[in-house]
Amino acid sequence: VESHNLEQIKDLFSHLVEEEIAEILESTPLKERQILWEAVESTRQGEILTHTNDEVTANLLGSLEAHEIVEITEDLETDDIADIAQSLDSSDQQTLLASLDEGDRNAVEMALTYPEDTAGGLMSTDLISVRADVSLDVVLRYLRTLGELPESTAELFVRDREGKFVGSLKLTVLLTHDEDTLVQTVLDSHIPGIRAFTPAKEVAHFFEKNDLLSAAVVNETNQILGRITIDDVVDIIREEAEHAQMASAGLDEDEDIFAPASRAAKRRTFWLGINLLTAIFASMVIGLFDASIEKIVALAILMPIIASMGGIAGTQTATIVIRALATGKLARSNSRSLLIKETTVGLFNGVIWAVLTGLAVLFWFSDVALSLIFASAMLINLLVAAFAGAMIPLILQRMKIDPALASGLMLTTVTDSLGFFVFLGLATIVLL
Amino acid sequence: VESHNLEQIKDLFSHLVEEEIAEILESTPLKERQILWEAVESTRQGEILTHTNDEVTANLLGSLEAHEIVEITEDLETDDIADIAQSLDSSDQQTLLASLDEGDRNAVEMALTYPEDTAGGLMSTDLISVRADVSLDVVLRYLRTLGELPESTAELFVRDREGKFVGSLKLTVLLTHDEDTLVQTVLDSHIPGIRAFTPAKEVAHFFEKNDLLSAAVVNETNQILGRITIDDVVDIIREEAEHAQMASAGLDEDEDIFAPASRAAKRRTFWLGINLLTAIFASMVIGLFDASIEKIVALAILMPIIASMGGIAGTQTATIVIRALATGKLARSNSRSLLIKETTVGLFNGVIWAVLTGLAVLFWFSDVALSLIFASAMLINLLVAAFAGAMIPLILQRMKIDPALASGLMLTTVTDSLGFFVFLGLATIVLL
Repeated sequence: VESHNLEQIKDLFSHLVEEEIAEILESTPLKERQILWEAVESTRQGEILTHTNDEVTANLLGSLEAHEIVEITEDLETDDIADIAQSLDSSDQQTLLASLDEGDRNAVEMALTYPEDTAGGLMSTDLISVRADVSLDVVLRYLRTLGELPESTAELFVRDREGKFVGSLKLTVLLTHDEDTLVQTVLDSHIPGIRAFTPAKEVAHFFEKNDLLSAAVVNETNQILGRITIDDVVDIIREEAEHAQMASAGLDEDEDIFAPASRAAKRRTFWLGINLLTAIFASMVIGLFDASIEKIVALAILMPIIASMGGIAGTQTATIVIRALATGKLARSNSRSLLIKETTVGLFNGVIWAVLTGLAVLFWFSDVALSLIFASAMLINLLVAAFAGAMIPLILQRMKIDPALASGLMLTTVTDSLGFFVFLGLATIVLL
Repeated sequence: VESHNLEQIKDLFSHLVEEEIAEILESTPLKERQILWEAVESTRQGEILTHTNDEVTANLLGSLEAHEIVEITEDLETDDIADIAQSLDSSDQQTLLASLDEGDRNAVEMALTYPEDTAGGLMSTDLISVRADVSLDVVLRYLRTLGELPESTAELFVRDREGKFVGSLKLTVLLTHDEDTLVQTVLDSHIPGIRAFTPAKEVAHFFEKNDLLSAAVVNETNQILGRITIDDVVDIIREEAEHAQMASAGLDEDEDIFAPASRAAKRRTFWLGINLLTAIFASMVIGLFDASIEKIVALAILMPIIASMGGIAGTQTATIVIRALATGKLARSNSRSLLIKETTVGLFNGVIWAVLTGLAVLFWFSDVALSLIFASAMLINLLVAAFAGAMIPLILQRMKIDPALASGLMLTTVTDSLGFFVFLGLATIVLL
């Protein structure tokens, strides 16, 4: 940034689309980000904010006055205005709402009444609907009077006389049928409207299942409220898949990668604190056997290997189960089969690694008894790790706790503590 | 499955779309899966196979004779036939290709020449293209003679007299402009064709950047070869995001969750083997200090806490860096800023947890010197963990090794071995 002057930056930005500028802003440290942001033409700032993640959006909005926010949102669709309004404090939000004409204000206020991660929060009110009892000819003439159709329009929504949603009319159908045909004879009524309170995750699933490009959002009486398009769904799918990855380290997928270090540290501290408790618990297990370790130091040297192998084996199983749960492939009916399969995998791996590591210990310490104890502890820990790796996410899911978030730490608690306990316990009984 | 008879299953399937049946098959253990598969009408089997993941597809195809495979693929689009052909052994593949008419065979053979994860491997040849120098009226009449347009058609591709791709004609534009208008005056020429060898990941990025519903795939001379639609891109995005999650546990995102236990165990064994080497290395570090542990057993009790906290802190940083690399947000220009930020976070967290855990150790063991040593080791390990968590994925990326796959194990090697070394080393110098 420093090596370019403002004119060069402006020139560069003029060759980029809004998504690209949003990505650049997300990839830029805070101080330089502010400089770049000010180099963006104000007419493009609104569109760019619809592509940045929540935390970056809030960061960029922070530098604007209320009247500037009103200006940059002028040309946005109502769902995007609602998104931005959600990141504002209530006085700025009121100023923004007051600046809109009545139709847009109503649309934005409606969007704000639905949680962000529901169909209502995702929808745009920018859609075209037609009556079922008119002919295609009427529809064609109506479209021509509009002059321009909303972006990504692949179908029109069809309503009956009471304004209720009855189906959709694909543009491809409109183009290939006779002009005298009535809309109601060629509309696609297989795809129902999506209720406004449907969670985003189910919306994505609905789109994928039916290969949709757009879908109508309806209220309880089946009146059309808005539409959701495939580009919203792509965002949902990306965020959902990233959630699992980030949550397993106690992180949020909306995190600004250049958030101030102090704020980032504060967030992560909680996770480290929880981990500390589980680590202390494992240490207390070791503490039970301090007399054994004092006599046979090899125990202290070898015990981390058992814990580590259990942790990896359990994590492999847990990762598969968490993913199967997230994609809806695991339910009560097949979880028993998966549990049996994973435990069998644990048994196979347990036997293989018990033999191999037992031989390694024999070679290293030339102690047959120690080697047998190590092998037994390895077998038990790998077997339990697989079982726990499958059970913990299943139990958490049933308790309505996010398995992606909590499984890892709970699993490590089991594999560490149990690994130490079995190995040190067996050694204490047999060797001392 | 056992509790339902075949008729009930067939009845249930008749109410489901192919995507749903594919999901059910993926979610069913192997033996029952075969029973369900045989209950599927053969006219739907081909379409279902296009929705199952690679390993499940191969499993289901395994039960079919070559002539059955020919039958079920009869009604598929050529890109889907190519997908299935890719999972067949070469004699079945030849039988399948021989059964196609010349046009389809050429299309499938062309698709097979491109790797599966490139634009050429993803594209379908089922598209409509029109000449640039005709009027919209001609296009409208042409579409009406076709009667039906390919699924998810939102735009037509426009070619010049030599068949070269010059842009796309959105259906929305076609519907809102005067019939006398020439195609070339209203076509959208901003979006270039995608070269056939473009990697899938870049295709997805291109779609997201430009908010596309479909795009043309072209050869080196800009001739139209096929088209990619947004539903293919949704699959790419999902797989890519899941890859990071699965790879961190050494797993493949294409894995059949009900693969036979012996096969699953064999795959995971490699990962456990690599982990064993790193665990043995950490144990050897402990072995260096066996005399110290013999004298002060508290060292053996406390050392796993330092390793564990370092592992978690490092993983948090690595997860953020891996994700930023995968989404293209991290490059040479901003990696230094991120490294500084993450190391600062590590310093903050190091100080906080050094103080807190130091006090806990003082309370537990009533030993001031031990407590100070513990706190110092904690600070050093958290600081190094953050630095290594950021550096390791960056270095792996530069070495063209998948950071999602290898970062975790390398990081644990550092945080475990270093944690043990610093803590036991300091204790040996100061206390003994």
